[in-house]
Amino acid sequence: MPTPVKSVLPVVLLGCGGVGRYLLRHIVSCRPLHANQGVAIRVVGVADSSSLLVAEDVHSTGLDDALLTQLCAAKSAGSPLSSLLGRGHCQLFKNPEARGKVIDAATTLGRTTGLVLVDCSATYDTVSLLKDAVDHGCCVVLANKKPLTGAYEDFQKLVSNFRRIRFESTVGAGLPVIASVTRIIASGDPITRIVGSLSGTLGYVMSELEDGKKFSEVVKTAKSLGYTEPDPRDDLGGMDVARKALILARLLGQQISMESINVCLLRVYILVN
Amino acid sequence: MPTPVKSVLPVVLLGCGGVGRYLLRHIVSCRPLHANQGVAIRVVGVADSSSLLVAEDVHSTGLDDALLTQLCAAKSAGSPLSSLLGRGHCQLFKNPEARGKVIDAATTLGRTTGLVLVDCSATYDTVSLLKDAVDHGCCVVLANKKPLTGAYEDFQKLVSNFRRIRFESTVGAGLPVIASVTRIIASGDPITRIVGSLSGTLGYVMSELEDGKKFSEVVKTAKSLGYTEPDPRDDLGGMDVARKALILARLLGQQISMESINVCLLRVYILVN
Repeated sequence: MPTPVKSVLPVVLLGCGGVGRYLLRHIVSCRPLHANQGVAIRVVGVADSSSLLVAEDVHSTGLDDALLTQLCAAKSAGSPLSSLLGRGHCQLFKNPEARGKVIDAATTLGRTTGLVLVDCSATYDTVSLLKDAVDHGCCVVLANKKPLTGAYEDFQKLVSNFRRIRFESTVGAGLPVIASVTRIIASGDPITRIVGSLSGTLGYVMSELEDGKKFSEVVKTAKSLGYTEPDPRDDLGGMDVARKALILARLLGQQISMESINVCLLRVYILVN
Repeated sequence: MPTPVKSVLPVVLLGCGGVGRYLLRHIVSCRPLHANQGVAIRVVGVADSSSLLVAEDVHSTGLDDALLTQLCAAKSAGSPLSSLLGRGHCQLFKNPEARGKVIDAATTLGRTTGLVLVDCSATYDTVSLLKDAVDHGCCVVLANKKPLTGAYEDFQKLVSNFRRIRFESTVGAGLPVIASVTRIIASGDPITRIVGSLSGTLGYVMSELEDGKKFSEVVKTAKSLGYTEPDPRDDLGGMDVARKALILARLLGQQISMESINVCLLRVYILVN
């Protein structure tokens, strides 16, 4: 007997670059697992930096799996979301109207069925939207570090209802760093120091340089493999690592900002033989 | 302004050896943290292998912190729980009556305030009590691996309401292994293989042997440092590691039993120079 659906989770995805598309494909591929868990994830909207593709009636249906798969293919090929309009059962809104439509969904769904806003973008621009969503009782999931590393008040606002926010992949990618730190703090054990290699990207770049490869080529390869941030300078300049450190520090209760993070850059000299 | 108490958690502790006593001391030392979290942990009973010390009225009060501290000191010194009776506000029940008293508490508290049964013993004897407690809506927390590694039906029963059971420290001690495996499975990522050094005890013993120390002395030291199971043969014979492997396998959905675990013992020859 199939497990009854106990929980429908409407989701709006912000950002459909590499991470966002991977998430969409993962959701589509996990339908049988979700059915077993009694959960139905309903992707009601997907936004990129310029527009929002949204289901015709967010209260009853989401964008169907075929459309989500097409969407991933279209975005991978560099086509805009508007190229999917002909598919039917969906509407497109351009910025700044798009933002209003997300707020509409948050207002109507937030306190009824619930709504999860998933931020897979790499911009600070989502923070006011996320804060509004929190006010409307929505859940927020972030792969994007920036909303958590701006003004301290924004961080505080976003984590004010800690049960309604997840940002596991912002630090340590697939490693359960945030969950572990949170658990350690909640259980009353003291954390005195966190030591780690906080950038897989820099690790990769350094290893390849050690092997004698050219810096420019290594960075290009790292980007094509999806290892870097959309702008690789975020990794190379240390800002990405600084953001992770700031998120950890704030989790530990330190009310500090980016200015308090001292990024020591190691100058790498590449010798041409 | 102090955080209001949102949640009172009555707890009965089974087993007050090294681990159980550490837990009691930790609870007592974390009162300010719990107050901040709006949580009050009320230890209403503590059982060892022969008897149960229980608060006079489990509905309204727990054993007070001074008594819990005395209890730890008494048990460390080898005194029985009955030595604490003169302290007042508590009652003592010997086995088998003690078991009935825990069930009474589970029946009356399980579906009202809730009751958490914490198993810090190292015996199979608690399993029927734990299963009854689960039936009465209680939560169960285990440091004890044995109830999870007996008959598969027992495991199934205990984890049937997965929100009401925790057994993080049964595998990997302080490392978040169970939580991570659970999260990976729930998120739809496949687990193909788990590799690890599953016994800190064996690691310690082997390192010391490598340093040229005597096996008998190393084991004695390991036990005195609290590194071994109460019976060190559980570690040395590989059974403790086998239990961890079985718990992980069952978490991954394999309906297997201890007989399916192949323990390869490495014969260690100690050369006398």
